[in-house]
Amino acid sequence: MSDKLTGAAREDALKPLLDNGWAVAEGREAITKSYKFKDFVEAFGFMTRAAMTAEKMDHHPEWSNTYNGVEVTLTSHDVEGLSPRDVKLAKAMDGFAE
Amino acid sequence: MSDKLTGAAREDALKPLLDNGWAVAEGREAITKSYKFKDFVEAFGFMTRAAMTAEKMDHHPEWSNTYNGVEVTLTSHDVEGLSPRDVKLAKAMDGFAE
Repeated sequence: MSDKLTGAAREDALKPLLDNGWAVAEGREAITKSYKFKDFVEAFGFMTRAAMTAEKMDHHPEWSNTYNGVEVTLTSHDVEGLSPRDVKLAKAMDGFAE
Repeated sequence: MSDKLTGAAREDALKPLLDNGWAVAEGREAITKSYKFKDFVEAFGFMTRAAMTAEKMDHHPEWSNTYNGVEVTLTSHDVEGLSPRDVKLAKAMDGFAE
């Protein structure tokens, strides 16, 4: 049983994320967002909080960091697309970045 | 006074790093290395230790993480090339990854 998001359920799930700075990645079933923080400590603090949540969910981001910037890509390899886990992790990350 | 590494000093400084999995980046004055760990917790633990050192040095990596993998790029923007700070941070990272 796949929980891959498709059709209207996908649209409904993504809407609040797309309204909050997330975008659907080009050429793959994934969502991405670029965060900017005050400095490296703020950026890495965000990553540390997100890392704890990701590990607890057993759902991990692809992400990169350069000084105060963090680029995040979320996808669910097990369903080869987006799942509610991506939406949940995206929302948690937005909470940590506030 | 730039401390940019050039000529023989650059070669001498890079030699032990190139022997230990680092490579000179293509198309830019930077060094890169791909680390692989047992799992996400080990990978992020490594990043956390490296982040502390980077912040203390005020010299920060460009890096990305996907599950148990960490890709690191080091360069010194202030000298538009490599400096002893890159060598020092690279060696510290290798120590943390052991």
